[in-house]
Amino acid sequence: MDPRPISRFPVPALGELAVDIRARIEAVQEKAGFVPNVFVTLAHRPDEFRAFFAYHDALMEKDGGLSKAEREMIVVATSAANDCLYCIVAHGAILRIFARAPLVADQIAANYRKADIAPRQKAMLAFALKVATDSASIGEDDYAALHAHGFVDEDIWDIGAIAAFFALSNRMANLIGMRPNDEFFVMGRLPRDKSGAPKPAVPPAR
Amino acid sequence: MDPRPISRFPVPALGELAVDIRARIEAVQEKAGFVPNVFVTLAHRPDEFRAFFAYHDALMEKDGGLSKAEREMIVVATSAANDCLYCIVAHGAILRIFARAPLVADQIAANYRKADIAPRQKAMLAFALKVATDSASIGEDDYAALHAHGFVDEDIWDIGAIAAFFALSNRMANLIGMRPNDEFFVMGRLPRDKSGAPKPAVPPAR
Amino acid sequence: MDPRPISRFPVPALGELAVDIRARIEAVQEKAGFVPNVFVTLAHRPDEFRAFFAYHDALMEKDGGLSKAEREMIVVATSAANDCLYCIVAHGAILRIFARAPLVADQIAANYRKADIAPRQKAMLAFALKVATDSASIGEDDYAALHAHGFVDEDIWDIGAIAAFFALSNRMANLIGMRPNDEFFVMGRLPRDKSGAPKPAVPPAR
Amino acid sequence: MDPRPISRFPVPALGELAVDIRARIEAVQEKAGFVPNVFVTLAHRPDEFRAFFAYHDALMEKDGGLSKAEREMIVVATSAANDCLYCIVAHGAILRIFARAPLVADQIAANYRKADIAPRQKAMLAFALKVATDSASIGEDDYAALHAHGFVDEDIWDIGAIAAFFALSNRMANLIGMRPNDEFFVMGRLPRDKSGAPKPAVPPAR
Amino acid sequence: MDPRPISRFPVPALGELAVDIRARIEAVQEKAGFVPNVFVTLAHRPDEFRAFFAYHDALMEKDGGLSKAEREMIVVATSAANDCLYCIVAHGAILRIFARAPLVADQIAANYRKADIAPRQKAMLAFALKVATDSASIGEDDYAALHAHGFVDEDIWDIGAIAAFFALSNRMANLIGMRPNDEFFVMGRLPRDKSGAPKPAVPPAR
Amino acid sequence: MDPRPISRFPVPALGELAVDIRARIEAVQEKAGFVPNVFVTLAHRPDEFRAFFAYHDALMEKDGGLSKAEREMIVVATSAANDCLYCIVAHGAILRIFARAPLVADQIAANYRKADIAPRQKAMLAFALKVATDSASIGEDDYAALHAHGFVDEDIWDIGAIAAFFALSNRMANLIGMRPNDEFFVMGRLPRDKSGAPKPAVPPAR
Repeated sequence: MDPRPISRFPVPALGELAVDIRARIEAVQEKAGFVPNVFVTLAHRPDEFRAFFAYHDALMEKDGGLSKAEREMIVVATSAANDCLYCIVAHGAILRIFARAPLVADQIAANYRKADIAPRQKAMLAFALKVATDSASIGEDDYAALHAHGFVDEDIWDIGAIAAFFALSNRMANLIGMRPNDEFFVMGRLPRDKSGAPKPAVPPAR
Repeated sequence: MDPRPISRFPVPALGELAVDIRARIEAVQEKAGFVPNVFVTLAHRPDEFRAFFAYHDALMEKDGGLSKAEREMIVVATSAANDCLYCIVAHGAILRIFARAPLVADQIAANYRKADIAPRQKAMLAFALKVATDSASIGEDDYAALHAHGFVDEDIWDIGAIAAFFALSNRMANLIGMRPNDEFFVMGRLPRDKSGAPKPAVPPAR
Repeated sequence: MDPRPISRFPVPALGELAVDIRARIEAVQEKAGFVPNVFVTLAHRPDEFRAFFAYHDALMEKDGGLSKAEREMIVVATSAANDCLYCIVAHGAILRIFARAPLVADQIAANYRKADIAPRQKAMLAFALKVATDSASIGEDDYAALHAHGFVDEDIWDIGAIAAFFALSNRMANLIGMRPNDEFFVMGRLPRDKSGAPKPAVPPAR
Repeated sequence: MDPRPISRFPVPALGELAVDIRARIEAVQEKAGFVPNVFVTLAHRPDEFRAFFAYHDALMEKDGGLSKAEREMIVVATSAANDCLYCIVAHGAILRIFARAPLVADQIAANYRKADIAPRQKAMLAFALKVATDSASIGEDDYAALHAHGFVDEDIWDIGAIAAFFALSNRMANLIGMRPNDEFFVMGRLPRDKSGAPKPAVPPAR
Repeated sequence: MDPRPISRFPVPALGELAVDIRARIEAVQEKAGFVPNVFVTLAHRPDEFRAFFAYHDALMEKDGGLSKAEREMIVVATSAANDCLYCIVAHGAILRIFARAPLVADQIAANYRKADIAPRQKAMLAFALKVATDSASIGEDDYAALHAHGFVDEDIWDIGAIAAFFALSNRMANLIGMRPNDEFFVMGRLPRDKSGAPKPAVPPAR
Repeated sequence: MDPRPISRFPVPALGELAVDIRARIEAVQEKAGFVPNVFVTLAHRPDEFRAFFAYHDALMEKDGGLSKAEREMIVVATSAANDCLYCIVAHGAILRIFARAPLVADQIAANYRKADIAPRQKAMLAFALKVATDSASIGEDDYAALHAHGFVDEDIWDIGAIAAFFALSNRMANLIGMRPNDEFFVMGRLPRDKSGAPKPAVPPAR
């Protein structure tokens, strides 16, 4: 048992929570095998919790031109720019699983230019980082650079909106000192058996 | 009629929108006398729209230690740090109305240190700007500085969460080139008749 | 009457001032209807006052390829980069009047890229902001970018010199805590009667 | 076999190398079980190789007030500030092993303020990061802050010199696109059997 | 004879200049033995020339709590922050002469914290650099820090105004590519005969 | 005799030093006529001393596409970016001597773009400064820009490695407060007799 706090603020017990919030958390727990700390720490503010995860799901679980792994790449790259420990570690784990690539999360967190990803994905991350760090100077040239890689305008909304949502998420995690669960640090790092085995473990909803 | 686009993306007509979104927009229109562009431009993505305004209301319309004017001060100060035209102008208008102070929004947008606000409010804005621009270095000293001005931890969550939410909002507005309605530029600037008159015009929900 | 100081330093009464300084101030007052605070606060140092306004007039009232509104655009954009409350507010007012455009000053102060101005004016402001924030890296490429928009070298001197002069002016205003007159905040914001009426109110000399 | 280049420059085969360089590399290989890429990529320049590792050993293998794990903390924190993929990953692995702590490297790479380390170690890293990013402003106050945590002047030389040496190392790795060995990503992440087992695997010399 | 241009703009011949400007230049030439390029390059714009030197003299030749050498220290430190070749070199020469100290200009240009100057002078330069690079955050704490070293408010105006004036001057020099005269590079570097000789050579007016 | 310390740390007397270190220092002294402070201050740590100068010599005294003066240009430009007093002054002196150009060091320290050097040398310094200040973003475009000026890959390693080595050197000098010898300030500034005289004075090894 870890005595280190997972938030600077009170963390509600599951039994205290509203039914819908509790149901959401139990569903995640069943899939992932544990409750990611983002759920219980943000549950301190139920209305903000509901809006946060509704927004998260609207961006991360929709269909569109970006793969799930690509969405997580954006999260990891922009969270690294914001020095957000929780999101780098938790979404790094999810990225490893979605991409079935044990190295890519650490590579992107350190320097996406040196990661084992496609040129199109590097262009995507350059745009996402501009939204994260200098959104006021986004212009038509930036849109054109992504069009040249085959992204359409709706993809670009997705890229920018994910970067924008994690601008919020990173700041909340830094504000409250959200601690990543120990489980995330090692998830998806070990080579899976290539012969027999099954589909990759389903990652937590977040 | 203004020929200039209010978004780089398609803007839905009211008739095309889902009932709940349309209802929300019509309610705003009735109060404010016009539809702020943030509503129709974000309605291009209905699920994100719902999450966005649910989050907005959870932070901006809750009770707590911060006045409505103080919440808007945070929005204006952090939006200025992010060079977000829409939010500076629209929330500047709302701030003028809530604070019944025609100068304060322009002062805070330029340099909150020189604004006609209380020392406690300057401390609040210093914290909000740190969340906006360097959240990874937030520490106990920053909390202590606000405690010294009488803020309690739940107030500090509010301050930080508003700064975090507008980190998202500013990036979305910059991403899609959201244009502020002309009405906002002049709202709340004229001295109201002090003798007779009524309560200040109700500001739009956002 | 406003009890808030307009300068951190002593402010001379008109009667104490040298004849030439007093004459200059009275002329402004006659045109504008009030005395902009920059005049009385800088009059604390008469020799610097004289040099300051001589320099100002040499740049802002000369003929050349830049319109008066364009000169004020440079002032507003670079003063916003320097977070100078006085100059953003006072020159924002003058810009609204010269440009007969009630929105343009707030747009440029927030983000000139999103302002309702011509591409040539955006190029002009990009150059001015480089002079304001990174003058050591100005090179032939920057000159060429302006030539492509039809500016000649003497125009470029004007653009750069205005940015340079307000680098001085912004720092003086920030140094002494110069407070903008309340009048500036609302000047030029209201649509003028287009049918009958006269030429726009003459703005103050500064 | 990995087809991805480990350096932008030619990488010598072991057989081509001078006897002393080859001996050094073989010794590392025996301890670590593989040859870290820093050895073969820098061997392209034998004289620089010899000086580099002599410097490395003089700082990282000397006695003194800093533990081996603390030295590696400095490497990870400053390499993260320089976005150096090789050093974050390789020295992260060594740190995990020396500290017998599977989480600490990722924590420090993301944000040392949130890591599970002692206040004295946070002070050490704050100083190291100042050397890494703003050495010209180091002054007596910075020395005093470390003295207050029990560091003596010779420790402070060590802290600063390690930060300085990896300022060099990070730039070389970024210059030549040095790729970390896949082995580093997972080293030291799995909990060791606490009952029986032996001393932790000896990390590579670098 | 040097074929390298001293300005990107036309440089008037002495004979073309107005009488007052020519007189000023000839006076400088007589004192200094050569014409500093700032005079002839700025003479391209006579009205700006007159205002520039009137401002310069009002700040640099007035009486007050700052010595002439201290005024030049401010110029060198802030010009180095702005990477202004002309002002670093020309005012470095003047500083060496006024301070009768051949090393101090190079020390201050590189890092004033390491210069052979008094603590009071380091505090003065810290303030001047804040005016030069972040004037919007100047506050009462900064004034108090200077008061603690014995500076009075009028001295602080001088310090800030000199930093502000050279914010202008540096940008003009960078804008037009003003080249320092070769003479400046070596002026004041050689130890003067201490026994016999006279008062130090009079520096040029600028 | 100068009472000012040349290091914040103990400075060994020559007699206390190991034979090889002493021999190296005496050789420098014979050539230069004095002992540059970098030798005696770093001798406080003999193993680091040996590695430092071995590295220095491997980069600065090798053959290759860069002239000795060009190597020193890189040192001066990057040391100025790091505000390192010792290296700007000491290597500025060496650069003046190697380049037989009394102005070039001060020009490059202030702003290499305005220095009297070839376009190829400006491209070299732009690359070196990127290694010094933002090495993580070095990419193929940067290599290509140097290829266009005739540099081959091995030259680019040299440029980058010199910038990287002085990233270390600058931080060490700033850490310990290394003071440049007075002799360096004036070395190479005086025009040499062009008629008779001999080869330029041999500069110190460093």
